[in-house]
Amino acid sequence: MNLSKFFFFTLFIILFFGVPTSGHAQTNKVPNANPDRIEKRILDLSKFGKNASGGTSRVAYSDSDVLGRNYIKSLMVNAGLKVRVDQAGNIIGRREGLNPSLPIIMFGSHTDSVPDGGNYDGDVGVMTSIEVIEILNLANITTQHPLEVIDFTDEEGGLVGSLSLTGRLKSEALDLKSHSGFTIAEGIDRLGGDHKNLANAKYSKDQLKAFIEVHIEQGGFLDAEGINIGVVEGIVGIHWWDVIIEGFANHAGTTPMDKRQDAMITAAKMILAINDVGLNTPGRQVATVGRIKAEPGAPNVIPGRVIMSLEIRDLDLSKMEIIFEDIKARLLAIAEDTNTKVRFEKIEIASEPAPTDIRIRKIIEASAKKLGLSYKYMPSGAGHDAQDMVHIAPTGMIFVPSRDGISHSPKEYTSPQDMANGADVLVETILNIDNVKGES
Amino acid sequence: MNLSKFFFFTLFIILFFGVPTSGHAQTNKVPNANPDRIEKRILDLSKFGKNASGGTSRVAYSDSDVLGRNYIKSLMVNAGLKVRVDQAGNIIGRREGLNPSLPIIMFGSHTDSVPDGGNYDGDVGVMTSIEVIEILNLANITTQHPLEVIDFTDEEGGLVGSLSLTGRLKSEALDLKSHSGFTIAEGIDRLGGDHKNLANAKYSKDQLKAFIEVHIEQGGFLDAEGINIGVVEGIVGIHWWDVIIEGFANHAGTTPMDKRQDAMITAAKMILAINDVGLNTPGRQVATVGRIKAEPGAPNVIPGRVIMSLEIRDLDLSKMEIIFEDIKARLLAIAEDTNTKVRFEKIEIASEPAPTDIRIRKIIEASAKKLGLSYKYMPSGAGHDAQDMVHIAPTGMIFVPSRDGISHSPKEYTSPQDMANGADVLVETILNIDNVKGES
Repeated sequence: MNLSKFFFFTLFIILFFGVPTSGHAQTNKVPNANPDRIEKRILDLSKFGKNASGGTSRVAYSDSDVLGRNYIKSLMVNAGLKVRVDQAGNIIGRREGLNPSLPIIMFGSHTDSVPDGGNYDGDVGVMTSIEVIEILNLANITTQHPLEVIDFTDEEGGLVGSLSLTGRLKSEALDLKSHSGFTIAEGIDRLGGDHKNLANAKYSKDQLKAFIEVHIEQGGFLDAEGINIGVVEGIVGIHWWDVIIEGFANHAGTTPMDKRQDAMITAAKMILAINDVGLNTPGRQVATVGRIKAEPGAPNVIPGRVIMSLEIRDLDLSKMEIIFEDIKARLLAIAEDTNTKVRFEKIEIASEPAPTDIRIRKIIEASAKKLGLSYKYMPSGAGHDAQDMVHIAPTGMIFVPSRDGISHSPKEYTSPQDMANGADVLVETILNIDNVKGES
Repeated sequence: MNLSKFFFFTLFIILFFGVPTSGHAQTNKVPNANPDRIEKRILDLSKFGKNASGGTSRVAYSDSDVLGRNYIKSLMVNAGLKVRVDQAGNIIGRREGLNPSLPIIMFGSHTDSVPDGGNYDGDVGVMTSIEVIEILNLANITTQHPLEVIDFTDEEGGLVGSLSLTGRLKSEALDLKSHSGFTIAEGIDRLGGDHKNLANAKYSKDQLKAFIEVHIEQGGFLDAEGINIGVVEGIVGIHWWDVIIEGFANHAGTTPMDKRQDAMITAAKMILAINDVGLNTPGRQVATVGRIKAEPGAPNVIPGRVIMSLEIRDLDLSKMEIIFEDIKARLLAIAEDTNTKVRFEKIEIASEPAPTDIRIRKIIEASAKKLGLSYKYMPSGAGHDAQDMVHIAPTGMIFVPSRDGISHSPKEYTSPQDMANGADVLVETILNIDNVKGES
């Protein structure tokens, strides 16, 4: 960092958090995270829902999830946290600060897994958060702000815990059947929540000073480049469409090649055009066709209609719109060229980009630097509880490497030291946020 | 036809059928087919299974099919034919010849329809065959050979009648459920057949002198070019494969565009390559991808596998093999380029090319010429009962125009005169085959 950058960085910190107090000196005596302790706890947790493939099927609301969450509660209690389960089933462990009038610094992630998942996605965020408490206990540090460690409910099944915490879970979601076999409403109650009073789980903006989530990096960039820490710029937005191509269904035997209006040929050209836009537009957007259906769908009938999905992701909403307009223009031209028609139907379950707080990014960067860890700025292509938390708190996200970028698989692996690095950056970040005057 | 062609044509006829007898003179007094009678009967038949869309759902074995077949039997009886229903449910109307030791000249088609089909596909072949009998009755002509008019069972559901007649229906087929809701075994019995003694429906090669089928032309060539008669060179062979493309399924959010092994992108390139080979190889082959499935098939997952169908049709088996080898080579190259794998699984329900008898083609050509009708040689891209009959009889097929080449649709239409032309060429062809010495 050159001098002018340092100036602006300092300015950011002061504008956001106020002038540092004398408490800041406490960070000097912070011990390092214990890699072995974190790994042991990860492995202990993995026993709940362990399956034959060596992975973990601890889907939300299952018996394994209930047992796993009991284990998390015990770790929190042993670390001296005051533990409660909110109406959404989120486990929240609280450590009081010196100034009870200050808003909470919250951090955590989730411990539910996908079916046949691994032991690191989500779990690393919860274990490093508990490790932060262990470190503060060891160093005998009490923060100004109250701290809350959270283990969210059912991240993998639809961000149920974080949507509840931000008051944005749709009531229809409660009736959906989860992988556990229980509806989400039933599941919440199984975890000790109270789905009928979900509104009481909501936090207001003035209750929270910040939210920070540590998570494994699922793109494989950190692992491939040997970088310790990802400073997450935000969670990309996701827009979905059905692309509907209308040709003319006809007999594949009697209709000569040059007389066809084959929706499949049009679709093939469109898939390549979508890929070309995604690949060759400068930036980190992605564009994907993951689902396709040809109608009538028989080997001996020229497809009269093809319906395929289009997904666009980027951190910048206006960029997403530009990408879509570009794709749309190219697909309309292909339809015209091939004597077919195309239309786009937006699917409403998409999510908007969720940029992290620019000031917290800077603090995470400074923390990594101070600890001598390499880092890079990057978006999160995957969804996380943090994307909901941006609605009620300045939010930061810290990525640690995942081997080969593998996630949602028994093959997930993050080394003990990489997890400890995440905890070290997290505690440093929390103390940095805590130790600047503002509200006190 | 120049002189040398005429010589070879005559040679063909003599080699196949022997030297013309004096009976040949009978063809001079043959009256023309009656367009109005044929159309009236087509419309009368269409009442059985008529549906709201103006089309016909007279699927095999349905009550409508039973009633329609009763109507056909009544037409045959009124035309003086001796009518029987064989073990496969085929309706066979016989007219004795002068020489009972001669083999049968058989002609006909089918009267079952696809669900929501039209009134011409199949029906025209049966009605023109009955018209031939009316013409012979009017002209008071008795052929040397016995004649049999056939209305095959369940053509649309899998050539059940003609496969039985040629002893090639697989016993497994009997258990399949047809569109009528009945199994094929139940359906055959409903039509008056006896599925347990299906073997008795079989004709041997020495029982049949020839088989001729009149049918609407489903490619639209005759209609577009204003040609009266198609001299069918054969029914194209159909080969089917599953093409299985293996990429690597991955998170569509976290996997950058240039790090993907997207089976869908590979599939799109392959679909275009298949189309290119089908379109640009000289000849009349067709190559079609009608079915596609991406796995896992979610908008937010890069497809790790795509399975799609490949159909190749041509009249020439060796050409079909060359086309496939060309496609295979191009697809293997695309797989290598895109870091994916491809394999081909042959599907065994395919059928081999069924060329018509070259001598009968010449007779049909000569008949059209004599009647002053325009004609062209052409393959049939669609399947017909004739493709089975080639196994037990020298077979010919006569196409008449279908408006816009539409078939399997309520919009099917063939004009009364076009149907009458078909009947005229059919009777001329039959008399030609009959009136050459050979066996007598």
